[in-house]
Amino acid sequence: QDKLISVTWDDGKTTNYPHIYLRDNCRCSSCFDPQTQQRSISNAVYHNYANATIKTARVDDKNDKLYLEWINDGEHTTSNFELDWLKAHRSITYDDIEVNPVTKQLWGSEMKNNLPQFDYNKILNDDSELHRWVRCMLKVGISLLVGLPEDIGQVKKFVNRVAYLRKTCYGSTFKIHTDKGDDLTTIAYKNGGLAMHTDLVYYESVPGILLLHCLRPAKQGGENQVADGFKAAEQLKASHPEYFDILTKYAIRYQDEGTDVGLSNFNQIAYHPVIRLNYNGDIKQIAYADHARCSKLIAPSDKVLSFYNAMTQFLQYAYDPANMVQFKLQSGCMIALDNYRIMHGRTGFEESADSIRFIEGGYVDWDEALSRMRVIEK
Amino acid sequence: QDKLISVTWDDGKTTNYPHIYLRDNCRCSSCFDPQTQQRSISNAVYHNYANATIKTARVDDKNDKLYLEWINDGEHTTSNFELDWLKAHRSITYDDIEVNPVTKQLWGSEMKNNLPQFDYNKILNDDSELHRWVRCMLKVGISLLVGLPEDIGQVKKFVNRVAYLRKTCYGSTFKIHTDKGDDLTTIAYKNGGLAMHTDLVYYESVPGILLLHCLRPAKQGGENQVADGFKAAEQLKASHPEYFDILTKYAIRYQDEGTDVGLSNFNQIAYHPVIRLNYNGDIKQIAYADHARCSKLIAPSDKVLSFYNAMTQFLQYAYDPANMVQFKLQSGCMIALDNYRIMHGRTGFEESADSIRFIEGGYVDWDEALSRMRVIEK
Repeated sequence: QDKLISVTWDDGKTTNYPHIYLRDNCRCSSCFDPQTQQRSISNAVYHNYANATIKTARVDDKNDKLYLEWINDGEHTTSNFELDWLKAHRSITYDDIEVNPVTKQLWGSEMKNNLPQFDYNKILNDDSELHRWVRCMLKVGISLLVGLPEDIGQVKKFVNRVAYLRKTCYGSTFKIHTDKGDDLTTIAYKNGGLAMHTDLVYYESVPGILLLHCLRPAKQGGENQVADGFKAAEQLKASHPEYFDILTKYAIRYQDEGTDVGLSNFNQIAYHPVIRLNYNGDIKQIAYADHARCSKLIAPSDKVLSFYNAMTQFLQYAYDPANMVQFKLQSGCMIALDNYRIMHGRTGFEESADSIRFIEGGYVDWDEALSRMRVIEK
Repeated sequence: QDKLISVTWDDGKTTNYPHIYLRDNCRCSSCFDPQTQQRSISNAVYHNYANATIKTARVDDKNDKLYLEWINDGEHTTSNFELDWLKAHRSITYDDIEVNPVTKQLWGSEMKNNLPQFDYNKILNDDSELHRWVRCMLKVGISLLVGLPEDIGQVKKFVNRVAYLRKTCYGSTFKIHTDKGDDLTTIAYKNGGLAMHTDLVYYESVPGILLLHCLRPAKQGGENQVADGFKAAEQLKASHPEYFDILTKYAIRYQDEGTDVGLSNFNQIAYHPVIRLNYNGDIKQIAYADHARCSKLIAPSDKVLSFYNAMTQFLQYAYDPANMVQFKLQSGCMIALDNYRIMHGRTGFEESADSIRFIEGGYVDWDEALSRMRVIEK
């Protein structure tokens, strides 16, 4: 009953194109706009493809085209396809969905003193270096940029090189320092330690890549802590599959309410599982932040203990000395983090009034970084 | 074996607080920062809550507090809780996850000439009207704003009233007109019809609310078509549950490659199921755009026909005359659409060289609209 057109290729293999597939991808001027390379079907009638049936099919060797005549397709009676187009679609489905063009390299403490390092100015001036940086962020999820001027504005300059800043309730970029007055919203702007987390989990639409530019480090302490959340999740999956399931199934409610200097009041609430899976079951996103985690739980009451145990075990993997890397970002350096994967925190610090720790941060979304990578590739 | 503290309330009901829950929510100055209302635990040791055990518990009636002594919790030996805090958390889990504070009102063609209407200037000047608008967008997903000046910049002005523009590869705002030269990326900037779709599905992070301000309508045609994608999905679920499953399970690959006047080149690719479900099984997002849908399919080859049939049936519900609403946006009017729910398109149009159709569009994310709503509520 399946309506199919069989095409046998030079290598002897065959593709069976369903009629409906060829109808959907008709390249005629009513169905497809060559200028924009987009489908241009605007008439709802055409959405009833199921009836469309190929009456005749003919390959013209002179111009390498397949000519089709349709019945039961309204006023639409013919299609033709370049054989090259058919060849490019000899597999009409993806064998493997290449959501990520780069295989992720999970890492642990061997990354200490081995963070992938990039020259800031080289990225600003060299497309292939920018491309290498995006690929590194896809693969490793962390990189150290060196050679930055020690003034405000470098995060914006860098992100504009990629695309544009992803603004948030903390501004286009945000300034991490302790001189914000009394109207504080987040412990990130105090001098205590900050447990490892991913940023802005109180957004449904979590920013993709986090950049932290150190203008002035703390005199004492304020060391960065980072861990590969994907590795911790994979370890959890291997050792405690039931905990892994719990952390993919039950979300956490996050909230952040307040303001920052010169900005509007906000009250952000979002729900994320600690481990979010892709539709194909791969790990897509780690979302976790102790400081913004709400007290009320989403997990049902008979799962509360398991949920806590799962969360605890996940964090123990993240903080495992074999996994966590600790270092102190120096002035003129910027760290870039995949905010869907890498957890980051810091130790508490001391500073003097005339020399406060100062970090400028900002975000660029993965959509834009990947787009830039593809554009450079062309 | 469960370690629990039972509290019986005045109404005779009891809450059993697991020890680990009280440990996690300890309000002492090492664990919680009252200024920012955030957890301030920065020491990984504390993540090993499972061992922490309450040795003594005592309610002090004089100051309405519960005092706890801990064992097996390192140097952390005591907690105390305001009884009011415990009362506010007498249910430690959500009975119902109120992701959306407003019940959605699904709609069809009865919305014709009945679109919820708002005065643009009133929203600009009146917080309660802005609040009413966000609630309407949550509930109905569409609204008509009237009384706008007929010049560029109103989308930005309006969105800045809510929060800030969500920038995309088409700019901070985008101008829909046919006078873009030959370097066209999207059929939206031509004068043909545009099948009903949701915007920017070639972003993983799809913008939340779409605003379209009409500065000048087409002389002939260019009518807007809208349909409630959630209603179409619910109808599909009721009539063809197997099709509904397919559209939640298999993603579509979307791509948009090109540029717009004065902007950088982009090459956006993203994957979305037509119907994305929330973790609790509710419909979360409709994502569909014929013009950016790739020819290669994610659905496996033995599901291709079912996938097409499912997509077709979904679109037939969307285009059902009982569901779709058609109208012509006039100059000085702006339409707002929940881009996670409402599909929109337009009919082809004709215009004269001295009077081209001109629409300015832009986005604001749901995170920000909901944040503004909550801030106004306080």
